[in-house]
Amino acid sequence: MSPHLPALDLPYAPLVRRIEAEATVIGDQILRIDHFLNHRIEPAFIAEMGRELARRLSAFHPTVVLTAEASGIAPGLVVAQTLNVPLLYAKKYAPEVESPYISRVIPSPTKGGETKLVLSQRYLQPGARTVIVDDFLSNGRTAVALVEMAREAGAEVLAAGFIVEKRFRNGHQSVSELGVPVATLAQVEALRDGKAVLRQPQG
Amino acid sequence: MSPHLPALDLPYAPLVRRIEAEATVIGDQILRIDHFLNHRIEPAFIAEMGRELARRLSAFHPTVVLTAEASGIAPGLVVAQTLNVPLLYAKKYAPEVESPYISRVIPSPTKGGETKLVLSQRYLQPGARTVIVDDFLSNGRTAVALVEMAREAGAEVLAAGFIVEKRFRNGHQSVSELGVPVATLAQVEALRDGKAVLRQPQG
Repeated sequence: MSPHLPALDLPYAPLVRRIEAEATVIGDQILRIDHFLNHRIEPAFIAEMGRELARRLSAFHPTVVLTAEASGIAPGLVVAQTLNVPLLYAKKYAPEVESPYISRVIPSPTKGGETKLVLSQRYLQPGARTVIVDDFLSNGRTAVALVEMAREAGAEVLAAGFIVEKRFRNGHQSVSELGVPVATLAQVEALRDGKAVLRQPQG
Repeated sequence: MSPHLPALDLPYAPLVRRIEAEATVIGDQILRIDHFLNHRIEPAFIAEMGRELARRLSAFHPTVVLTAEASGIAPGLVVAQTLNVPLLYAKKYAPEVESPYISRVIPSPTKGGETKLVLSQRYLQPGARTVIVDDFLSNGRTAVALVEMAREAGAEVLAAGFIVEKRFRNGHQSVSELGVPVATLAQVEALRDGKAVLRQPQG
């Protein structure tokens, strides 16, 4: 990597503090911060996080942000607003998407079954400088599908950015192995005793 | 209604012009503008439409914007950004939503089957001054479900705002009959000969 790239996974203190103070943790797998990230959204805070993620991703000079329905739309939009490039979101269960399209089927254990993602080829041109954005990086299945779909369209996938990653799942590794650098604002190392254990901001 | 309310359904010229020039119309029912509204999003244009819709809805002094996954999230967020209030979105197929929750099942002919919307009661407090926002108002099923869910939570539903309405479907009437004023930026009167026929901006 270029020495001029910003550090992609520096813990972002305002988010780390809120997760530590406010997250609902159930068992060693479930982290719920849907009161500000993906059920209820605070416009000022999501915009602040979008600016920080966009700052890191701007080093790749993207021309489009790609995400997936539904929880990726809000973080994707605020990143796209800052970068001033279009947001493209892969649709789920979308018979109305215009042909030709690219699709992937993703197993979705929590939702019992599978999710189909569909992307109209019309909106992702060959050579498009693409960054992928989503709320969570966990097992990486959605992110890997988005990378594959973008590449099938002929686009160049430069990086992927996530608000939160679960470092104890293998998503970071799966995405990196595709040659896609990963940017994240908060890194959850473990869920233990009802608390989230996060990498700590410096200083 | 108060005489001080702004006109809620004045045609918004920049949107009317784009629909007329760019929409894909199939038969007399399908209007596709997903290249700027709900598959690919242009941040500047969606923000501009959000500001205009927020201006009309601000007369109701809302404290929360309520929408539904997935295509409501982007317009809902830009309206919420302008109003500086939280955005709450009802989730689809969401076993992870915290109890107690409120839900509705909506028949979804285009997707073949039905859609379940789920809203955690934790995030919509009794008395919350709520406006509903979505991209399209067509048959009104989603909007009616959102009104019912909000009222079941004890919230006050003040108005509903949509980017585009199909005036030849009965959504406007269905929502109005619930006592909820409807704001829209573009009113499609008919789809005919591959073109959208819209109400025209004044002057």
